[in-house]
Amino acid sequence: MPGSTFGKHFRITTFGESHGPAVGVVIDGVRPGLRISTRMIQRELDRRKPGQSRVTSARKEQDRVQILSGVFEGRTLGSPICMIVWNTDQRSGDYKRVKDVFRPGHAGYAYLAKYGIDDHRGGGRSSGRETVARVAAGAFAKYLLHRKGIYIIGHTVEVGGIRASTFDESLIEDNPVRCADAKAARRMERLILAAQREGDSVGGVVEVIIRNVPVGLGDPVFNKLDANLAKALMSVGTVKGVEIGAGFAVARMRGSENNDPLYIDKRTQRIRTRTNNAGGIVGGISNGEDIVIRLAIKPPSSITKEQATVSRKGRKVMLKMGGRHDPCICPRVVPVAEAMTALVLIDHIEEQARLRRPARK
Amino acid sequence: MPGSTFGKHFRITTFGESHGPAVGVVIDGVRPGLRISTRMIQRELDRRKPGQSRVTSARKEQDRVQILSGVFEGRTLGSPICMIVWNTDQRSGDYKRVKDVFRPGHAGYAYLAKYGIDDHRGGGRSSGRETVARVAAGAFAKYLLHRKGIYIIGHTVEVGGIRASTFDESLIEDNPVRCADAKAARRMERLILAAQREGDSVGGVVEVIIRNVPVGLGDPVFNKLDANLAKALMSVGTVKGVEIGAGFAVARMRGSENNDPLYIDKRTQRIRTRTNNAGGIVGGISNGEDIVIRLAIKPPSSITKEQATVSRKGRKVMLKMGGRHDPCICPRVVPVAEAMTALVLIDHIEEQARLRRPARK
Amino acid sequence: MPGSTFGKHFRITTFGESHGPAVGVVIDGVRPGLRISTRMIQRELDRRKPGQSRVTSARKEQDRVQILSGVFEGRTLGSPICMIVWNTDQRSGDYKRVKDVFRPGHAGYAYLAKYGIDDHRGGGRSSGRETVARVAAGAFAKYLLHRKGIYIIGHTVEVGGIRASTFDESLIEDNPVRCADAKAARRMERLILAAQREGDSVGGVVEVIIRNVPVGLGDPVFNKLDANLAKALMSVGTVKGVEIGAGFAVARMRGSENNDPLYIDKRTQRIRTRTNNAGGIVGGISNGEDIVIRLAIKPPSSITKEQATVSRKGRKVMLKMGGRHDPCICPRVVPVAEAMTALVLIDHIEEQARLRRPARK
Amino acid sequence: MPGSTFGKHFRITTFGESHGPAVGVVIDGVRPGLRISTRMIQRELDRRKPGQSRVTSARKEQDRVQILSGVFEGRTLGSPICMIVWNTDQRSGDYKRVKDVFRPGHAGYAYLAKYGIDDHRGGGRSSGRETVARVAAGAFAKYLLHRKGIYIIGHTVEVGGIRASTFDESLIEDNPVRCADAKAARRMERLILAAQREGDSVGGVVEVIIRNVPVGLGDPVFNKLDANLAKALMSVGTVKGVEIGAGFAVARMRGSENNDPLYIDKRTQRIRTRTNNAGGIVGGISNGEDIVIRLAIKPPSSITKEQATVSRKGRKVMLKMGGRHDPCICPRVVPVAEAMTALVLIDHIEEQARLRRPARK
Repeated sequence: MPGSTFGKHFRITTFGESHGPAVGVVIDGVRPGLRISTRMIQRELDRRKPGQSRVTSARKEQDRVQILSGVFEGRTLGSPICMIVWNTDQRSGDYKRVKDVFRPGHAGYAYLAKYGIDDHRGGGRSSGRETVARVAAGAFAKYLLHRKGIYIIGHTVEVGGIRASTFDESLIEDNPVRCADAKAARRMERLILAAQREGDSVGGVVEVIIRNVPVGLGDPVFNKLDANLAKALMSVGTVKGVEIGAGFAVARMRGSENNDPLYIDKRTQRIRTRTNNAGGIVGGISNGEDIVIRLAIKPPSSITKEQATVSRKGRKVMLKMGGRHDPCICPRVVPVAEAMTALVLIDHIEEQARLRRPARK
Repeated sequence: MPGSTFGKHFRITTFGESHGPAVGVVIDGVRPGLRISTRMIQRELDRRKPGQSRVTSARKEQDRVQILSGVFEGRTLGSPICMIVWNTDQRSGDYKRVKDVFRPGHAGYAYLAKYGIDDHRGGGRSSGRETVARVAAGAFAKYLLHRKGIYIIGHTVEVGGIRASTFDESLIEDNPVRCADAKAARRMERLILAAQREGDSVGGVVEVIIRNVPVGLGDPVFNKLDANLAKALMSVGTVKGVEIGAGFAVARMRGSENNDPLYIDKRTQRIRTRTNNAGGIVGGISNGEDIVIRLAIKPPSSITKEQATVSRKGRKVMLKMGGRHDPCICPRVVPVAEAMTALVLIDHIEEQARLRRPARK
Repeated sequence: MPGSTFGKHFRITTFGESHGPAVGVVIDGVRPGLRISTRMIQRELDRRKPGQSRVTSARKEQDRVQILSGVFEGRTLGSPICMIVWNTDQRSGDYKRVKDVFRPGHAGYAYLAKYGIDDHRGGGRSSGRETVARVAAGAFAKYLLHRKGIYIIGHTVEVGGIRASTFDESLIEDNPVRCADAKAARRMERLILAAQREGDSVGGVVEVIIRNVPVGLGDPVFNKLDANLAKALMSVGTVKGVEIGAGFAVARMRGSENNDPLYIDKRTQRIRTRTNNAGGIVGGISNGEDIVIRLAIKPPSSITKEQATVSRKGRKVMLKMGGRHDPCICPRVVPVAEAMTALVLIDHIEEQARLRRPARK
Repeated sequence: MPGSTFGKHFRITTFGESHGPAVGVVIDGVRPGLRISTRMIQRELDRRKPGQSRVTSARKEQDRVQILSGVFEGRTLGSPICMIVWNTDQRSGDYKRVKDVFRPGHAGYAYLAKYGIDDHRGGGRSSGRETVARVAAGAFAKYLLHRKGIYIIGHTVEVGGIRASTFDESLIEDNPVRCADAKAARRMERLILAAQREGDSVGGVVEVIIRNVPVGLGDPVFNKLDANLAKALMSVGTVKGVEIGAGFAVARMRGSENNDPLYIDKRTQRIRTRTNNAGGIVGGISNGEDIVIRLAIKPPSSITKEQATVSRKGRKVMLKMGGRHDPCICPRVVPVAEAMTALVLIDHIEEQARLRRPARK
C-alpha cells in the first residue's frame, strides 16, 4: 500500500531519496488562518541536521526549507502545504565503492527483494535523510500544540548502558547527546567517542514526554492513542521497541502496584492519578496525565569496523566502509521522535475538535 | 476518527459491547473461492474464551460464532464476511454495584471524559470482550497464512519475573499459561494462583514468532511492517510495550554486535543472517528471517484487593470489587496477539501480491 | 479494494447477499449521546421494501431491523452501531432455473469474470437487496440532519418520457410513483402498468433536493461535495447518470445566462443567488442554496419478455424469465437516493464541525 | 477531510495555488522499474496549457515539469514521485481590481465562508490551474495504460447546441475544439469566437471513451468503477453532470431496449454485447466493452460582459471584468478528463492485479 502518507486530518505525504534532487512533504488538512513561517520549520530542521557536534555525522547539509504552496502572507490557506529541502552535499561517490555489497544492518537486501531495483546512492528512500520531511511537518504540528499549551519534550535517557538518573529539562539542548542529566551526558559522550574511535557505534533509549495533554484523545479500538503513537515511532528507522508508562516493567508488577490510584486534585477539581504507570493513556485514551514513551534506539548500522557480508552476486565479502557516520543516533532521533509524536497528537486533537460538544438534544 | 476498522486489503470492522446483544466483525476485501468454516473460527475462539483453566476468569461464555454473509457453500464469495457471537453470560449485576465508582487501571474515567456517556456494564467497548471479534477475523487470517506455510506462534515468556529459559513449541498448549518451558510454566502457574489468593494479579511478557515469512513485506516509510505490527499489538488493551528482535537490549549493544552478518545459505542459495537481532525486519521490510516480537502485558486491573479511588461525584472511595477476574491475562492474550499479527501479515501479503511481478518492459 | 465501506467520519460498512442469512450495516464514527430507535430506521426501510403498491415487485420482505451494538438505553454510545435485517422470503428456486444463463443487463457475467465464483441466488451482492443496509444507515443520517433543520426530498420527475411539470411536496408519498405532480403521477402509473403487462420495464429520472444546507460543505479538490454526491449516487446499481443544478443543460447555455447573479438577502443579510443553475454547489462547496441533483434511472433489467443471451457454457439462448420484478424502480430508488445523499451530507457536516472555528490567534 | 489526495494504490496528492510559487503532485504507490520521462508528462501538459489556439485563454504559461523524487536513471524506484511546475505568468494585478467583489459563478463566496480566508489572486486553489497537477499524474497513468493496450480518447461532442455527428478519431487533435467531426468543429469554433466577441462564453459536452478495458474492474458496492469515475470527473471544477453509456436517455427507454443482448464473439470466444447502452460497466464492474462517459461542461464563469453581483462588504455591484479568459473550456477539459479517467483506471487495474489469480486450493 502506498506508504508515504500518515495521519487522517493533519495528513502528511513525504517524498524524496537521500541522493535525489530534494526531499519534502505535503501537509493536507491544515486549518486556514494559522501563522506559519519558514523560521519555525528551520529551527527544528537545524536540531535534526548532521554536523551539529562531535557525536554526529560530519556530513554537512544546509537543509534550508522552502514553502511552495498553502501559505499566503504568512498564514495557512487551508490548502495543502508543500515544503521542500534541496539535497546538496550528496557525495554519491562514497557509496559507489560499496554499490555491489549488502551492508549489514541496512535495508539494501530487503529493498532489492521487494522492489527489484535499488538506489544504491546512500540508502535512497530508506536513508535517515527521509526524516527531514517528518521534522519539517512535525515542526509545524509542534508549534500548533505549543499554542495550545501542550509541550513535547524528547531527551536521551540511556546510551550504551549509561542511564540518566536526574531530570533537568533546561539542560537537554546544552549537551550534544540531548540528555537532561549533565553528569550522565558527559559519560555518554565519552562512551560515544570511544566507540567512534574503534569504528563502532552505540545504541540507547530516547524518552518523549508530553505535558498538558487534553483528556479524551484516542479512538478505540484500533486508533487508540498509544497504538497510533507506537506506529508513528516504530516507523522511524532506528527504533526497535516502544513502551508507554511503566512499559516492560509491568511484567514484574502486581495489579495492586501497577494500578494508578485515582484522586481529586483540590485545585483544579480534576480527577488525577497518584502514580503514572499508565503513562497517561488508559484504554487507548489520554487521561490528562503526562504521556511518557520510551524508544529503543539501535546502534547505527554504518560502522567502519570490518564486517562479514555478501555481495549482490552472492560472494562472501569482508566489508570495511569509509564515510561519515553517526556513532550514536540518539541526539538526532530526539527531534524526529518529537515530530512524530506531535503529528499523532495534532491529528487526535483535530478529531476531538469534531466531537467536543456531543450535541445532546 | 472512526476507530473500529483495521487493515487495507483484508479490512476488518469490529462492533459490540461486552454487555450488549452481540459482538462481531465484518471482513471486507477477502478473495473469493477460499474455504472457510465456523469450525476453523471456533477453534481460535475457544482458545481465547474465559473459563479454560484455573488461571483464567470463571466467566462462562459459549462464544459460538455465526456467519451472516460472504460465504456460500463453504467458500468465500469475495463479498464482506460478517461473523457474530451473541453475548450470553453477561451478569451486568456484578457491575451495578460499582457503577458510580471509577475502577483504577480501567478506562472508565477517560471514556466518560471523551464520550460524555459511559456504558457501565462491564467496560462496554473497552472490555476485553471486544477481542472476540479480533480473534474471529484473525482465525481466518491465520488459516490463510497457514495454507501458505506461514506459522504464527504465540507463547508466554515471562510472568511476574519468572522467565522461560527453554523453548519446546509442542508444550505451549499443554499448560494453562501457554509457556513453551514446562518447568517455568509450573512456577508461573503457582505465582499466578498465589496472587489470585491475595486478590491480586500479575503481569508478564508474551512473545509472537512468525515462521517462513516471505521477503519483502512492509511499505516504507509509514506502513513499515514493524510499524503496523506495533500499532496492531499496542491496540490490544493490556499491552504497554512492543519490541522487535533484540528490542530494548539494543540500548546496550554496539553496532558491530547488533548488525546481523549476512551469508549465503548453501542449500537454498538465499541470503540469510547469522544472528537475528533485527527480528526479521530491516528498514521496515521483512528479510525472510523469523519475525520475533515481544509484548509487555500489564497485570489485570480488575483485582479484589482494596484500592483507593474516587466516585463519579468526586468522593474518595475505598473500592473492594467482587466478580470473576483473570489473575494473569497472558495465556488469553496469546490468541489475540496471534490474531492481530495474522491480520497485519495477511494485509501486507495481499499488498505484495499486487507488486509481485514488477512488470518491466 | 475493499468496496463495502463509505464515508470518513460517519463511516458505514455494509454486508449481506440477497439470499444469504442477513443483510446489515455497521456505522462507525457516530457521536455519543444521540437518540436512536428501531422505529426511525424501520420507517425508511418500509419506504424501500417491495410489495408496497401495484408498481413494485410482489416479493414480500418484512425487513425488520435489529440493532446489535452501539446503543444503550435509546442513545448512541459512540461505538459502532451494527444493524441487521434477516432475509426471509428468498425463493432461491426462482433463480435455479436461470442459473446457467447470463441475464442481459445484469452483472452476472462481470461478477463471474471478476470473482471466478457467482452466487446465482438472485444476484447475491449485486442485488438491489443490498440497499437495505444503505437505507438503514441513511435513515439515521436523515434523522440527524432533520434535527439540524436540513431536509432531503427525493421524488420521481420523469418516467418513460412523462415529466412532472408541477411540484407539490406533500403529494410525493401519496402516489405509488412518488411524484410531486399528481396528474403526471397518474400518467406515469398507467405507463408502468402497461409496460408490465408487456413483460417489459421503464426508466425514469429521480430528483433529490436538499433544503437548508449550511454554507461551506465540501473539501476541494477531490472531496468536493458534488464529487462525493456523484460517487454515492452512481454507486446505486440502477443509476446511469448524475447531474447537479442545470446539469447537461449547461451545454446549451451562455456564461452570462448560467452564472447565478449574487445579491444580498435583505431579511437574513446573507449572500444569495437569484437563479440556482449551480444547484447549490460552487467550486465543490455548498453555497447555501438548495442542492438539486437528478439521477438517470435505467429500466429494470429483469423483464419477462423474451431476450437473446448466452449460457455460461457459451450457447445461444432465448431467455424468458418468470419471477416477481419491479416494472419501474424509480419509486423504490427514492429512499435509497435520499439515504446516500444523507450519508454524504452528514459526513461533510461532521468534517465541518472540526473546522467551524478556524482558531485565529 | 483532507481533499487533495485521490486513489488507493496509484495515489496522488496535489498541491499549489494559481498564484503561489508552484503547483505539483506526489504520486505514491507506483511500482518500481517503470520507465518515466519528463517528455511523456510534458506532452500532456502542453495539451492542457492555455494559449494553444484562438479559442483558449491568452495567458502564457510554459508549464515545464520537473521531477523531484522517485525516479533514478529514467525508471521509477517504487518511492513517491514528486513533480512540480513553477508558476510564472501570474499577473495577480488583473485580480486586484476585483479583489473585493464576488465574481458570479466562481467559488469566492463559498471559499470565504468555508475557510474564512480567501486567496483573491485568481482563484487560488479553486483555479483551473490546479488541474496541471492532475494532468501531470494522469499523463504517467495514461502511459502505463497505453503499454497495456488500453486507450483513453477524450473529445468534444457538443458546444452550445452544436453536436458532432461523425467520429474520426484522427481528427481530434487537428482542430482547436478537439472534435472528431471536422465540419461540426468549424461550426463550434465560429460559435465560440462569436460568444467571445460578445464578452460571453459557451458550454458543451465532452466524451471520454476507453478502449480495450479488461473485464472485472470495479469494487462493489461503493467502489464501483462508474462510481469512482463519476467522483473523479465531477471533481473537475467545470463539470456539472456525468453519464455512462446511454446515460439520461435511459429515462425514455424500455428494459427490452436498454438491456444489451449478449453473444459469443466467434473470433475471441469472449462474451460480448450487441449494443452498449451500459457503457461498458454493469453492476459497477467493467464488462470488456468500451467505456463511454459524457460530461456536462459549463460555460466558463469568467466573462467580460457586465454582471450583477455584490462586494465583500455587501454592496450591489455591476461587475465588468478584463483579463484573459477561455470562451469555451471544452478543448482544455479534454486532457484533464482523460487524466482523471486514467487515474481511476490504473487504480482499479492495480487492485485487480492483486486479485487476478483467486488462489483456489
